[in-house]
Amino acid sequence: MKERVLTGDRVTGKLHLGHYVGSLKYRVELQDQYETFVLLADVQALTTHFLHPEIIKDNVRNVALDYLAVGIDPEKATIFVQSLIPEIAELTVYYSMFVTVNSLRHNPTIKAESKAGDFDDMYYGFLGYPISQAADITFCKATLIPVGEDQLPHIEQTRKIVRRFNQLYQPVLVEPKPLIGEVPRLIGLDGSHKMSKSLGNAILLDSTKEEVAEKIKKVKTDPARIHKTDPGHPEICPIYAYHQAFRKESSDEIYQSCTKGQIGCMACKQKIAQSINDRLDPMRERRAAYLEHPKRVDEILMAGTENARIMAKETMREVRDAMGMNYFTH
Amino acid sequence: MKERVLTGDRVTGKLHLGHYVGSLKYRVELQDQYETFVLLADVQALTTHFLHPEIIKDNVRNVALDYLAVGIDPEKATIFVQSLIPEIAELTVYYSMFVTVNSLRHNPTIKAESKAGDFDDMYYGFLGYPISQAADITFCKATLIPVGEDQLPHIEQTRKIVRRFNQLYQPVLVEPKPLIGEVPRLIGLDGSHKMSKSLGNAILLDSTKEEVAEKIKKVKTDPARIHKTDPGHPEICPIYAYHQAFRKESSDEIYQSCTKGQIGCMACKQKIAQSINDRLDPMRERRAAYLEHPKRVDEILMAGTENARIMAKETMREVRDAMGMNYFTH
Repeated sequence: MKERVLTGDRVTGKLHLGHYVGSLKYRVELQDQYETFVLLADVQALTTHFLHPEIIKDNVRNVALDYLAVGIDPEKATIFVQSLIPEIAELTVYYSMFVTVNSLRHNPTIKAESKAGDFDDMYYGFLGYPISQAADITFCKATLIPVGEDQLPHIEQTRKIVRRFNQLYQPVLVEPKPLIGEVPRLIGLDGSHKMSKSLGNAILLDSTKEEVAEKIKKVKTDPARIHKTDPGHPEICPIYAYHQAFRKESSDEIYQSCTKGQIGCMACKQKIAQSINDRLDPMRERRAAYLEHPKRVDEILMAGTENARIMAKETMREVRDAMGMNYFTH
Repeated sequence: MKERVLTGDRVTGKLHLGHYVGSLKYRVELQDQYETFVLLADVQALTTHFLHPEIIKDNVRNVALDYLAVGIDPEKATIFVQSLIPEIAELTVYYSMFVTVNSLRHNPTIKAESKAGDFDDMYYGFLGYPISQAADITFCKATLIPVGEDQLPHIEQTRKIVRRFNQLYQPVLVEPKPLIGEVPRLIGLDGSHKMSKSLGNAILLDSTKEEVAEKIKKVKTDPARIHKTDPGHPEICPIYAYHQAFRKESSDEIYQSCTKGQIGCMACKQKIAQSINDRLDPMRERRAAYLEHPKRVDEILMAGTENARIMAKETMREVRDAMGMNYFTH
């Protein structure tokens, strides 16, 4: 049987090059090997954005369009909207019954968010998001979850919930395995933080050629280089990081030219802007095609959601049977 | 517009005389004045009974039959099953986003359950049950919730959630009002605890005449009375409490006869057993009629649930509209 992969994003903003390098590029490869489910996590987005659901609304379609632009193929992958699968909420409620508050606090993300140690001030829904992740993964019986090493505890929490359910009732849920891959992090245009839309240091996937060139042009490179002939320090330069990410084959050459003072920052920037634009060009084409038929995106999401819903209903039926909460079906 | 009342019970066991005196008797009156919804809370029952869902399964029908036996009339009241309304789970998840862990801890039931102050060891679902109560009340836009004084904080938590939602998004939810009534507590057969099935000190509503007589016969009365002529202390005697609950009109007479040593415990018990049986007789008749057509109970629950579901879908549509999470409807 083909393994089933679940991936997805919280729909809090348009996607950028950091997402592309960190996960999207890999997902496009995965869809050829595995049955792929891609979640538009609008309910989980509420954990941080409940004050501004309009941001979520806008970004359901934005993120879907980003997916389609990078090459996630609706013929191969099921792209679906979390809030339209009520069974995810039902599973979340059922799993809540046997997960202690304590075990949720040990989740690394919850811990990180509560640096001050004040779990009391946390919103109940945020504290419970590891449970809703388990619901996302199990409703469609995903077997493989692509993650970086640091995200292993998340998968472990889902695995524990699955084992507990299967042991308490009947073994109907599937324990997912992590698909551990490199999850490269891309530095932002500011050179000091991970690329992030909210920090304003990102190149969005829907940028025009000019926007890319302009943003790259403004990046602060090695402050020690005043003249082209001054030896540079590429290891502290975000432009060099982008060469490694998008022009890997000639990044050694750039390193040498920079450290030897043989290439100026301007020329170096032009090269990477070109490469990034080369990478974005096919995405621009696909995006433009969809933008000409905007209803097509809705249709894809509705069809994907319908497909996911069929699976959700079937899993929910099995869960109710396992718990004996199938009152009127026999 | 007619006010809408929501009442209900966690389906963890058959109902007994304590339920009858404390709430069922009153509900039968309410259904004539108000549009009445009666919730069979099987999901909330999981908060304490997730290890034994088979108990819940059995008791969905048992409690429904108790309701019908006491005279809740399916022509007047909508009796429905919580787990078959997925919108309740969805609303629970949405409300979770803006309720803090801290505010849940202030809920009196949660506090009482955590006497040791160790909220960490609590199950996440249990900690969140005030939120799921808010979902129960709001999905059907109940306006009146019959409660005793001590349960006012529960209603207040729902009211807060409603106000917060309406202020954050759009005013689509209805703030329920408490319908404060006397909620008499019936002492158990042991004379020391509230009547409760789990303590084994209860007379179930489905008891036979003989079972009632037998249980009453075994009750320990005032230990100071050895002979009929010894003056009794009715205030410490469970039998006297039952006289007050079921033979109010002549309970003063009993008090006098007991304290003056004019009535023996045996005679006093026979009188109250008779009165209880008189009260249970019409219930026995209705129960017997349903037991002859057991499918009828299922039909009533399915019809009630369907009715509740229509309301749930409508409320959920309004909630999604209010939050702007209505992606494909316009």
